[in-house]
Amino acid sequence: MMSTTDARRERIYPANRVTLREVGLRDGLQLVKTFPDTDAKREWLVREHAAGVRHFEVGSFLPASRFPQFADVREMVDAVAALEGAHSAVLALNERGAEDAMATAAGEIVCVVSATEEHSQANMRRSRAEAVGLVRRVAEMRDAVAPGKIVNAGIAMSFGCSISGAVPPEDVLRLAEECLAAGADIVGAADTVGYAGPKQIGTLSAALDKLCGDRPFILHLHDTRGMGIANAAAGLDNGARVLDGSLGGLGGCPFAPGATGNVVFEDLVFLCETMGFGTDIDLTGLAAARQVAEGSMTGEVFYGALAKSGAPQNMEWRA
Amino acid sequence: MMSTTDARRERIYPANRVTLREVGLRDGLQLVKTFPDTDAKREWLVREHAAGVRHFEVGSFLPASRFPQFADVREMVDAVAALEGAHSAVLALNERGAEDAMATAAGEIVCVVSATEEHSQANMRRSRAEAVGLVRRVAEMRDAVAPGKIVNAGIAMSFGCSISGAVPPEDVLRLAEECLAAGADIVGAADTVGYAGPKQIGTLSAALDKLCGDRPFILHLHDTRGMGIANAAAGLDNGARVLDGSLGGLGGCPFAPGATGNVVFEDLVFLCETMGFGTDIDLTGLAAARQVAEGSMTGEVFYGALAKSGAPQNMEWRA
Repeated sequence: MMSTTDARRERIYPANRVTLREVGLRDGLQLVKTFPDTDAKREWLVREHAAGVRHFEVGSFLPASRFPQFADVREMVDAVAALEGAHSAVLALNERGAEDAMATAAGEIVCVVSATEEHSQANMRRSRAEAVGLVRRVAEMRDAVAPGKIVNAGIAMSFGCSISGAVPPEDVLRLAEECLAAGADIVGAADTVGYAGPKQIGTLSAALDKLCGDRPFILHLHDTRGMGIANAAAGLDNGARVLDGSLGGLGGCPFAPGATGNVVFEDLVFLCETMGFGTDIDLTGLAAARQVAEGSMTGEVFYGALAKSGAPQNMEWRA
Repeated sequence: MMSTTDARRERIYPANRVTLREVGLRDGLQLVKTFPDTDAKREWLVREHAAGVRHFEVGSFLPASRFPQFADVREMVDAVAALEGAHSAVLALNERGAEDAMATAAGEIVCVVSATEEHSQANMRRSRAEAVGLVRRVAEMRDAVAPGKIVNAGIAMSFGCSISGAVPPEDVLRLAEECLAAGADIVGAADTVGYAGPKQIGTLSAALDKLCGDRPFILHLHDTRGMGIANAAAGLDNGARVLDGSLGGLGGCPFAPGATGNVVFEDLVFLCETMGFGTDIDLTGLAAARQVAEGSMTGEVFYGALAKSGAPQNMEWRA
């Protein structure tokens, strides 16, 4: 019999269509100096939901003293829970964070494994094997106290590491396999520092697609070197069916000051639609959400071309 | 026996490698309010040449009263002629401009044909058939007075028209065939208003590749909707071997005020290299050229991610 969690995963992340995850309230706020207050964040969610967005990564369980932008993560989870058909994901970087997350209505808990030993030690002070061990404990915790919550294992630095450089694709595939064996419901490959070009993305996507069988995998792309949309296209061409992006491309890179952040959500919607992957997301509605976000973070740069140009008005641009 | 012009085309636009044309001094300056003086333009060319760029579109033969940015087009042609192995292209929109261009050292004369009757009439006050007729007269003029100069026919609005909307790919292919029959040495498809996504670009590129046989075709892409690099990747995947771009993505869109311009040349170099298409262009050298250009056009926005992030420093990113 299919487990509660498997059934839920198939509903939240169907394998036969594209799902876009808006990670602006989590990854987008990781490095910002100013951030929206709780009401503005709620309005951001409400407007994106009205535009058709259903998958939101809304925060991290981290010490509020160091990450005040995520102090209201529980309120954000509740805000998503109040929106019809919406799904919330939260980041948990240790067991304590995962325990806290289990006690909320969050639909998904995201764990991070680094693709390289060097980055794992520098960023998390643990080995890759220990990071996979955390994924296992989180999955066990979920089975015990919160069946149905999705456990997502994101593999950072999958396409190149700011510390150790090139990353063998076999390392990413092995870690993905280990995370699935440890109980993760879905795995993702992240181009954390935007090192990849579309060829590299396409090759690893095809291999991940094969590895994951009938469950989709996630591509988490950063636009640090302007390749974000091209990489998303290459992923889609090679089996990727869940892609992350952030409104206005929020979320810089700690290793490249001033650089662009996540792939721009609005442009990602346009890309998918031109490629024939329906998103049910309305660009005009996204523009309204962006207006709220920009108004609440006046010190931040918002990226994206669609926000300036709009979609073509005099032809059907959806394939 | 191969004509002088055919031999020159094979040397300037070899079919077996990628050629990047830097169109900043032409398309990039089409709409600007401030523009570099002649010395700054020369310095721009010298620095790009030092970075490895060899193909420059440097101006238009247009009335200097209305287009003062191109008043020094002859000096620009001479500046390129002084650079070892460099090739200059100039735009000629009528017979008078073509006559003027023939009398210079320019290596290439670019004519424009619109993909749609509506845009052709609105933009050039002539039919598409008349535009193809101009290509024929320019080619005849070249044969008579300047054998060896390349005649390039660019097809504007090939992927969607700001006036009439969707453009049937058959119209573009028919016009490309007519231009070649009229004597053009190379044809190009332009996404003038940035309507295309990668799927559309890939499909038409494959068809153009077939049509053009052993000669390459040009893709001229605008980043108006953020698809520029993804479209370039799709083109490269489907046979495109000559791509236009402008330093810093200069060159807005007359039909989308404030929108981004040509695909960013620096990012295009990075893309090609990650895909295994060697460009012999050095990104650090391009950054130096960009510094000159930015310093001489302080009112303009320069785009591009590589300029902010630089290439990855700790791994071989060239495929």
